[in-house]
Amino acid sequence: MYRAPVDEISFTLKQVCGLPDLQNSGSYEDLGDDLVDAILNEAGRFATEEIAPLNSVADKHGTPLNDGVVTTPPGWRDLYHAWIEGGWNGLSASAEAGGQGLPQMLACAAMEMWNSGSMAFAIGPTLTIGAVEAIEKHATEELKAIFLEKLVSGEWMGTMNLTEPQAGSDLNALKAKAERQDDGTYRISGQKIYITYGEHDLTDNIVHLVLARLPDAPAGTRGISLFLVPKFLVNEDGSLGARNDVRCAGVEHKMGIHGSPTCTMVYGDEGGAVGYLIGEENRGLACMFTMMNNARLAVGLQGLGVAERACQDAHAYALDRKQGRVTGQKGEGMIAIAHHPDIKRSLLGMRTRTQVARAICYSCAHAIDMANTATDPGQKKHWSERAGLLTPIAKALSTDFGVEVASIGVQIHGGMGYVEETGVAQHLRDARIAPIYEGTNGIQSIDLVLRKLPLSGGEHIKGFLAELRDIVREVGQSNRPEFGDTAQRLAGALDDLEAATLWMLEAQADGRVDDALAGATPYLRLAGLAYGGVLLAKGALRSGMEDRARRTQRTIMARSFAMTILCDTASLKEDITGSSESILAFDPEELAS
Amino acid sequence: MYRAPVDEISFTLKQVCGLPDLQNSGSYEDLGDDLVDAILNEAGRFATEEIAPLNSVADKHGTPLNDGVVTTPPGWRDLYHAWIEGGWNGLSASAEAGGQGLPQMLACAAMEMWNSGSMAFAIGPTLTIGAVEAIEKHATEELKAIFLEKLVSGEWMGTMNLTEPQAGSDLNALKAKAERQDDGTYRISGQKIYITYGEHDLTDNIVHLVLARLPDAPAGTRGISLFLVPKFLVNEDGSLGARNDVRCAGVEHKMGIHGSPTCTMVYGDEGGAVGYLIGEENRGLACMFTMMNNARLAVGLQGLGVAERACQDAHAYALDRKQGRVTGQKGEGMIAIAHHPDIKRSLLGMRTRTQVARAICYSCAHAIDMANTATDPGQKKHWSERAGLLTPIAKALSTDFGVEVASIGVQIHGGMGYVEETGVAQHLRDARIAPIYEGTNGIQSIDLVLRKLPLSGGEHIKGFLAELRDIVREVGQSNRPEFGDTAQRLAGALDDLEAATLWMLEAQADGRVDDALAGATPYLRLAGLAYGGVLLAKGALRSGMEDRARRTQRTIMARSFAMTILCDTASLKEDITGSSESILAFDPEELAS
Repeated sequence: MYRAPVDEISFTLKQVCGLPDLQNSGSYEDLGDDLVDAILNEAGRFATEEIAPLNSVADKHGTPLNDGVVTTPPGWRDLYHAWIEGGWNGLSASAEAGGQGLPQMLACAAMEMWNSGSMAFAIGPTLTIGAVEAIEKHATEELKAIFLEKLVSGEWMGTMNLTEPQAGSDLNALKAKAERQDDGTYRISGQKIYITYGEHDLTDNIVHLVLARLPDAPAGTRGISLFLVPKFLVNEDGSLGARNDVRCAGVEHKMGIHGSPTCTMVYGDEGGAVGYLIGEENRGLACMFTMMNNARLAVGLQGLGVAERACQDAHAYALDRKQGRVTGQKGEGMIAIAHHPDIKRSLLGMRTRTQVARAICYSCAHAIDMANTATDPGQKKHWSERAGLLTPIAKALSTDFGVEVASIGVQIHGGMGYVEETGVAQHLRDARIAPIYEGTNGIQSIDLVLRKLPLSGGEHIKGFLAELRDIVREVGQSNRPEFGDTAQRLAGALDDLEAATLWMLEAQADGRVDDALAGATPYLRLAGLAYGGVLLAKGALRSGMEDRARRTQRTIMARSFAMTILCDTASLKEDITGSSESILAFDPEELAS
Repeated sequence: MYRAPVDEISFTLKQVCGLPDLQNSGSYEDLGDDLVDAILNEAGRFATEEIAPLNSVADKHGTPLNDGVVTTPPGWRDLYHAWIEGGWNGLSASAEAGGQGLPQMLACAAMEMWNSGSMAFAIGPTLTIGAVEAIEKHATEELKAIFLEKLVSGEWMGTMNLTEPQAGSDLNALKAKAERQDDGTYRISGQKIYITYGEHDLTDNIVHLVLARLPDAPAGTRGISLFLVPKFLVNEDGSLGARNDVRCAGVEHKMGIHGSPTCTMVYGDEGGAVGYLIGEENRGLACMFTMMNNARLAVGLQGLGVAERACQDAHAYALDRKQGRVTGQKGEGMIAIAHHPDIKRSLLGMRTRTQVARAICYSCAHAIDMANTATDPGQKKHWSERAGLLTPIAKALSTDFGVEVASIGVQIHGGMGYVEETGVAQHLRDARIAPIYEGTNGIQSIDLVLRKLPLSGGEHIKGFLAELRDIVREVGQSNRPEFGDTAQRLAGALDDLEAATLWMLEAQADGRVDDALAGATPYLRLAGLAYGGVLLAKGALRSGMEDRARRTQRTIMARSFAMTILCDTASLKEDITGSSESILAFDPEELAS
C-alpha cells in the first residue's frame, strides 16, 4: 500500500535541490513554506487515497476498444474528474492561461506522487500539459482562446502524435500529410501509432497535436509542421460541433501500463481531418521540442514514481516475511528477511537509487524554473544549459533506476513477486516502457554527449564538476566519522567523471564521433551515478533539522551508495575510454545469428 | 524466429568446455562426434520447428483450471508426445532405467534448445528428470519397478513439492504431515504452493515427490521425509487404479511462463493421500538435494535459452529496422540500427552474455559428468567440488544474464518491444522467474561464499584460479594483435577475483560471517564475469578450425566483453571488500517507508 513520502519529498526540494532559490527569487508571490507544504500534503493525500487504490484495477481491466470507443478502467472517469476539480491539472500552467503558475519543482513533486499512485493514470495529464505548453508558446490567439483554458482545467485532454510505423526515433521519415484549405485550415491524413490516450472516455473532447508534411515541404525534419486536430470540432460559442475525421483503429496490448490506452490513430479516412497550424509551416519540430523536453523530465518522474512505490512494497514485505535465521542464532525462530545482510543490500540499493532519481529530477526542474525566471541573460543562459545537461540524465537514469528498483523489488518478494496477485510484478511491467519512449535512453545518452557536453565550449560541464567538488569538500570537512570513506569515494567518482568527460570532448574535437557514440550509454550512467552520489551526501549534510534516526539513516544511505553502486564509476570510465575500438570493429552483418 | 545455434553449441561443448574428456574417458561407448552432431542437429530441428512456434500461443492461452482440470495450451499435448516419442525425455537417464545414458553435457545442450523453443514447455520435463534422479538413487526396487520406466520414457511426468505458504526458502518451517500406515505406506496431508506442472492434461498420471513430516519427527530440516504420491494409484499390473487424495486447488496468474501451470496442491482433503517413502524417514532433504542441484543448473539453462532467443530476435530486428544515419552521412537514406555504435554495444552485450552463460553452464555439466564417471577418488573429489563451485554461478549468473539480455532486447526493439505482439516482451516476462526459483540468486551467492569457497580449505578455488591464469597466459602469448588488451584485462579481473576471494575466506576465518554475507551477491557476479571472460577468450583461441569471419567475430566478442562488461570486476572487488560496514549499519526497522 503506497503512502506518499511527503516529508522526504519536502526535504529533497528544500534542502537538496534549491527550492528556496525560487521562493526568494521574487518570481513566485506567496510561495512560502506553508503553501508548499499544503500543496505537497494535499497532493500526497490524493495520490495515496484516490489514485493508488485503482492502479491494480486498471492493470487487470485495460482499455478495451469497441466500435471506435475506448473504455477506461472502472473508477477512472470519476478519479480523473476529482483530480481536475482539485485543480491539479493546471499546477504549473501560467495564471493567464487559467493555471496556478507554480514552479516546475512543485509540479514535478506532485507528478512523482501521481506516478506512484498509477503511472498509467498520470501519463494522460502529462500529455495534456505538453499540449498546453506548445499551444501557449506557439499557437495563434484565436486557437488559444478556444482550446487553452479547457486544456488547462483538464476539461479536455491533449495528445502528442509523432510516431508512424516507419518513423520512430527518426522523424525525418514522417509521411502524414497536410493540405492547405482556402479558409486557412488544413486537412490532415495519415496513420500515427503509439498515441498515448489517443482515444478514451475521460473527457468530451480530445485535442491532438499532430506532426505532418505539406505537399511542398522540404524533405527531412525541416519539412514538418505541427497541427492541432480536435476530436470534435468546436463551434464559435465553444460548444462541440461535428466529429472530426480522426478515429482510433486499434489499442496496443502492452507489457504494462494497461490503464493507459496506446492507440493507432487514423486521420483522414473520409477526406481529411480538419487541422489548425501551430507555429509556422515547416517549423513544427521546434514547437514539438518545446513539449518534448519537459516530457523527458516527466518520463524520468515516471521511473521515480514507480521506484518509490516498489521500495515501499518491498520494504514492507521484507519486514513482514520471516525466513531463515541470523548468523549464530540457534533454534527454529525465523527472522524477518529485512535483517539478512543480502536483503539489506537489496533494500539499500532500491532506496538509494530512488533518492538519487528524486534528487536529480528535482534538480532538473529547479534548473528549468531558474531559466524560466532569470532576468539576467547570463543567468538565463547558465540555467538553460544546466537544464539541458540534466534533462537526459534525469530521463535516462531515473527510468533505468525505475526498472532496476522494480526488478529488485520482485526479487525480494521471491515467488510472491512473480505472481500478479501481489502487484509488484506490475511495477516492473509498468516501469519497463519508460527507458523506451520520449527518446530511448540510448538517444538521451547521445544527446548528452554530442549536444550537452559541448555547451559553452565544454565550460558548462566543467563548471558543474567544480560545483560538485565543492560539496564533496564539505563532506570531507564535516568530520563526521559515520560518513566513513564517503568523501574519498565521491572525489574518486568525480575524477572518473572528469576523465571521461575530457575524453569525450577530445574525441569530438578530433572528429572521432563514433568513439564518443560507442561510449555514450556508460557515460550517461557515470555522470548520473557521480551526481547522484554527491546529492545524497548533500542531503546527509543538510539533515540537521531532522530527528536523529532520520539523520543517521540518511548518512547510511549516502555512505552505502558511495561504497556499493558508486564503485561502478571506475569501471564505467575504463569502459568509455577503452572499448570503442572493439565495439566499432563488430560487423553485425557478419554474424548470422 | 528462433533457429537453434547448433554450430555454436557444438563449438562450445567441444572446444571450450571439454566434451572430448568424456568422449575419451571410456565411460560413454560410441560417443563419437557423429553421434554428438546427430543428437545436436535433431534436437535443434525439433526445438526450432516443433517447439518454438508454440511459445507465443502458450503465452496467450495460459493453463486455465476448471473443476480441478488444468488445460494446457493448444498443440501442447501433441508436442509433448512427439517430444517423448523422439526419446528426448530419457537423454541422460541411465540405460538400466530405460534412458540413453548420455552425458549431462549433451542433455544440457539439448535443454538449452528446448528452453529457447519454450521455457514454459521445457520446465515440465526438467521436473520429471529430477524425479527420476531422486527415485533412481533413493527409492526401493519395488517403487522403481512401478514408476521409473514410465517417468524415463515420459509417459508420466514428475513434480517437486517443497514450498508451503510459510516455508519458501526456509524448509525448516514445513508443516505438511505424513502418517504411517500398517501396510507400510503413509497418508500425506497439507498444502503445497508454486508446484510446477502440479496438474495438467499432458500425461495420464503425475508422480508427485512431496516433502512432509512424520508425527514424531524432530523439528527443523532433520525431520523432513520425502514421499512419492501418484495422482492415480497404480495397480499391480501397472494399470491405473483409484484417484489419490490430491487435487489442484488453484493455478497462479504469473508475470510469465504462462504455458507452465503453477499449482496450489492440496493433499489429504479426504483423509490423506497415499504416499510411499523415498529413502529413509527424516532424511528426505538429502534426497531432495540430489534433485535440487541438477535443477539449479537446469534453471541456469533457462536463462541461457531465453537469452539466446532474445539475441536472435534483437539481432534480426536491428538488421531490419532502419532509422537515422551514420556519422557524416548526408541526405535522407536511413541505415539499419544495427550499425549505430550504441546498438552495436547493445548487441555485443547480449551476445557475449549469452555465450558466457552457455560456456559456464556447459562447464558445470562437464564437471558433473567428470565427477559421475571418475574412478579415481581424488579425481572424483576434485570434480565434485568443481561442480559444487560452478553450480551456483551457473544458476545465478545465467539467470541474471537471461533477464539482462531479454531487457536489452526489448530496448533495441523500442516501442515494438513493449507491445506483446512482437514476442520479445514475453522473453523478459518469462526470464524474470529464473533468478527466483530453485533458490533465489541471493541464496546461490550465499551458497557459493559460505559453502563452496571453503571447499578443501580454500584450495579448490585457488586451483581454479590457477587454471584460469594458465588460459590468460596463453591469450597473452598468442601474439594476436586483434586481441588488443584482452589478456591484460583478464589478468586484472583474475587479480580482482583473487583479492575478493581471499577477503571472503579471511572474513569467514575471522568469524565475520555477516561481512561475507553482505558481499555475497557482488562476489558471485565477480566470479562469473571473470570466469566468463576467460572462457570467451579460450573460445577465440580454439577457433582455428572455423572460417575466418567466425574466428574474427569470436575474437571481437572476447575482446569487447573484456573491454566493457568485464571492467566491472574492479568495482565489484571494491564493493565487496569495502561496503559491509555501511550495509550492516542499516536498520530496516528505523526507516518507516
